[in-house]
Amino acid sequence: MKKVGEYSKEELVYLQNKLLKRYAEFKNMDLHLDMSRGKPSSEQLDRSNGILTVLNDYKLENGVDARNYGILDGIPEAKRLFSDLLRIPSANIIVGGNSSLNMMYDTIVRFMLFGSLGSTPWCRLPKLKWLCPSPGYDRHFSVTESMGIEMIPVPMTENGPDMDMVEKLTAEDEAVKGSWCVPLYSNPQGICYSDETIERLCSMKTAAPDFRIMWDNAYGVHDIYEKIRLKDVFLTAKEYHNEDRIMYFFSTSKITFPGAGVALMAASEKNVAEIKKHLAVQTIGFDKLNQLRHVKYFKTADGIRAHMADLASRLRPKFDVVLNTLEREIGDSGFATWMKPKGGYFVAVDTLPGCAKATVELAKEAGVVLTPAGATYPYGKDPQDSNIRIAPSYPTIEELTQAMELFCLCVQLAGVNKLLEI
Amino acid sequence: MKKVGEYSKEELVYLQNKLLKRYAEFKNMDLHLDMSRGKPSSEQLDRSNGILTVLNDYKLENGVDARNYGILDGIPEAKRLFSDLLRIPSANIIVGGNSSLNMMYDTIVRFMLFGSLGSTPWCRLPKLKWLCPSPGYDRHFSVTESMGIEMIPVPMTENGPDMDMVEKLTAEDEAVKGSWCVPLYSNPQGICYSDETIERLCSMKTAAPDFRIMWDNAYGVHDIYEKIRLKDVFLTAKEYHNEDRIMYFFSTSKITFPGAGVALMAASEKNVAEIKKHLAVQTIGFDKLNQLRHVKYFKTADGIRAHMADLASRLRPKFDVVLNTLEREIGDSGFATWMKPKGGYFVAVDTLPGCAKATVELAKEAGVVLTPAGATYPYGKDPQDSNIRIAPSYPTIEELTQAMELFCLCVQLAGVNKLLEI
Repeated sequence: MKKVGEYSKEELVYLQNKLLKRYAEFKNMDLHLDMSRGKPSSEQLDRSNGILTVLNDYKLENGVDARNYGILDGIPEAKRLFSDLLRIPSANIIVGGNSSLNMMYDTIVRFMLFGSLGSTPWCRLPKLKWLCPSPGYDRHFSVTESMGIEMIPVPMTENGPDMDMVEKLTAEDEAVKGSWCVPLYSNPQGICYSDETIERLCSMKTAAPDFRIMWDNAYGVHDIYEKIRLKDVFLTAKEYHNEDRIMYFFSTSKITFPGAGVALMAASEKNVAEIKKHLAVQTIGFDKLNQLRHVKYFKTADGIRAHMADLASRLRPKFDVVLNTLEREIGDSGFATWMKPKGGYFVAVDTLPGCAKATVELAKEAGVVLTPAGATYPYGKDPQDSNIRIAPSYPTIEELTQAMELFCLCVQLAGVNKLLEI
Repeated sequence: MKKVGEYSKEELVYLQNKLLKRYAEFKNMDLHLDMSRGKPSSEQLDRSNGILTVLNDYKLENGVDARNYGILDGIPEAKRLFSDLLRIPSANIIVGGNSSLNMMYDTIVRFMLFGSLGSTPWCRLPKLKWLCPSPGYDRHFSVTESMGIEMIPVPMTENGPDMDMVEKLTAEDEAVKGSWCVPLYSNPQGICYSDETIERLCSMKTAAPDFRIMWDNAYGVHDIYEKIRLKDVFLTAKEYHNEDRIMYFFSTSKITFPGAGVALMAASEKNVAEIKKHLAVQTIGFDKLNQLRHVKYFKTADGIRAHMADLASRLRPKFDVVLNTLEREIGDSGFATWMKPKGGYFVAVDTLPGCAKATVELAKEAGVVLTPAGATYPYGKDPQDSNIRIAPSYPTIEELTQAMELFCLCVQLAGVNKLLEI
C-alpha cells in the first residue's frame, strides 16, 4: 500500500478527487448512524431480558426482606457473586446503585469534603492536580474538571500510562492527588496494563500521602478476542503497604442493562470503613431488589462468564468489521494508525496530526456521528488533533460496514486535504 | 385521671411498686419487638408486589429503550405521573434513584462544593449554620452534621417551626444557610405547616442570598385520618420572587418499596438547570426501568392515590392502637403528652422532662426497641430529654398492642422514678 509520504502533489490532487467522488456518493445515501457512545445494541440487551422477570421472591439468604429498608453496602449474595467474579474479598466490596460513574464521582466528592483517612479535605487545599492517562474516558475527565482539579495528560504506551512520567510527577508534587486508570481494555485504545505498570503504580512513592488511583475496571470481563487477566492490583498494592491507594470500580452496565445495572466499588478495609461511615449519612441503602435480580439471573460468577462469552460472540463480528475495514482501506498507508484491542468496547484511531476534527466533521456531514474529536483528552483538547474513538457496539453489522467505509474515506480525505494545505 | 402533681410521696411509691410488678410480668413475656424505624410492614409491602413483574416492555413513550443509556433527569412518563400527583410542572422535576435522602445529601454536597446559582461554595466560608425544626428527622440532622454545619434547633409549634425565631435568625446572620422542613405530617410529630408558616418561610428576608429550604415532602400523600393539603410552596415562593429558595423532595419509599422505590426532587427552573449541569457529570442516568415499573404499575396519579388509601386503611388501626393506648393508660395524667397526627408515619410522645432515655432503656430491657431518645434532636441532644418517636408501621396489631402497653408502663415508671428522685 502506498505510504502517505510517497504521494506527489499531483497524485494527492488525483486521490482527493477520487475520494470526493466517493464521498459524494455516501452523502447521497442519506445515512443516519450514531457511533458516538459505547452503547450496547438492542440485540445485546435482549440477551439479558430474563432479568426483568426473574424476581419471584424477595427474601435474602440472611432473612432480610429486600423490599424494605436496610443493608447499606450491598446484599450478601451480590457481594459474593462479584467477589467470585473479580477475586476480591466480599469484605472489601460495596455494592451500590446503577452507576459506577456515580460511585466514582461520590468518591472524589468525599475526598474533596472530608479528605481520605484523616488527610486534609481536598477542597481546603490551594491546588489540586490529577493524572489523566490519555487518550482516556471523557466522563472521567469531566468529574475531575468539575471539581476544579487541574488535569495533566499522561501519554499512553502499549503497556499503560507512561510510568516514568507518572512516577516523576507523583514523587515531586504533593498537589498531584491521584490518577484515572482503566487498566483492562482501556477506553478508548483497548490497552491492558502490563504487570510492570501495575507494580510501579502500586509501589511508587507519592508526595501526597493521600494519593489515590481511581481503578475503573469497566471492562473487567469484557474479553472479545482473548482473555487477558491483569496482575492483582490489591495484592500488589498490599505488598508495598499501599492498598489504601486503590479505589476500584466495576459495573454490569455493559453486562446487563446500562440503564439499570448494578455498580460496585472495592477498597482496602480502612477505606471501606470510612466510605461506609459517609454512605450511612448519604443513604439508607441502594436498590436491593435490583441487586437480587442480578444474583437470581446469573446465579454464579460462571453464569456471568458464560453470558459474557455469548455477548463477545456477538460483538466480535462488529470489531472484525472495524479492524478489517481499517486494514483494507487504510492499512499501512500512514493515513491512520490504530491498535487491535483484545476486548473492551472501542477501537481508537489516530489520524494524521490535525485531521481528527476534520474527519469527524466530514463523517457527520455524511450522516455518521462519531465521538467528538478531542473528547478522549482532558478539557477536550487533543494536542495532536488526531485521536478518534470508534464505538462499534450499537450499530448493526450492515450499518457498521457502511459507517466504517465512510469513516476510512473521511480519514483519507481529511488527510489529503491537510497534506495539500501544507 | 389523677395528675402527676397530685401524688403524695407515699402514693408515688405505691404506684412505683404496682408498675414494677407489671413491668416484671412484661419482662417474663420475652418480647422481641422493633419500633425503632419507620419501616413499612411486610403486609404493606405485599400490596405493591405487582410492581415486581409489571415490566413486560421497556420502550418509553418517546421511543427510548429504557434498558440502555440515556435520559438524565427521569423518563417523561414518570415526570408526568409525579407532576400530576404533586401538582408541580414536569419541567421542575428531576426523577432520581431509589433514595430521596441521597438526593438531599447530594444537594447539600453541591452547595458545599459549588455554591448555588453563582454564590460562593459553602466549603469556602468560615462558618455555616442551619435551622433544624425540632423534634425532627435524625437522618436530616446527620447530613448537616457530617458537613460540619452548625445546627440550631428551632422549636416546633402546632403550626410548624417557631417562625419568629426562624425569621430573626435568618434575617440577622448570613451564616444561616438554610433549614430542614418536613411540612406535611412532620417527622415525628405529624404537624402540618399552616398557610401562614409557609407564607412566612417563602417571604422572609434572609441575610444569606443563597438561603435554601430543604422541603422534604416525605409524607406528601400519606394521609391516615384526614386529607390535609398544604399551601403550594412553589407558587407562594414565586409571589415573593423566592422560588430559588425551595429544594423539594419526595419518594415512593413509603408508597411502594423502601429498598427499591423512586425518589425525585423539584426546584425552580434556574435550580433545575444548575442541578442538571452537575448531574450530567455525576451519572449518565438513574434506573429508568424502575421508574418505568412505577409508571406501569400505577398508571396515573389517581392510581397512586387509591393505593395510598388502601395503605392508610391498614395503617389506621395501628395508629388507633397507639393513640388509644396512650389515651387509656396515660390520658391527661401528665406523665406524657402527645399530638394526634392526621397522617405520616409517627407519633411523638413527650415524657416528663428527663425521662425519655430512661423510658427507652426500660422498654429495651423488656424487649421493645424504640428510636433512641434524643434522636429527634440535632446532635442527638434533646435538651429536655423528653421526646420519643413511636413508629407503629412495622409491628402487627397484636405486637403493637403489647408494645404500647409496655411503652405506657415504662413512661409512667420512668416518670415515677424521676419524681421520687427529686
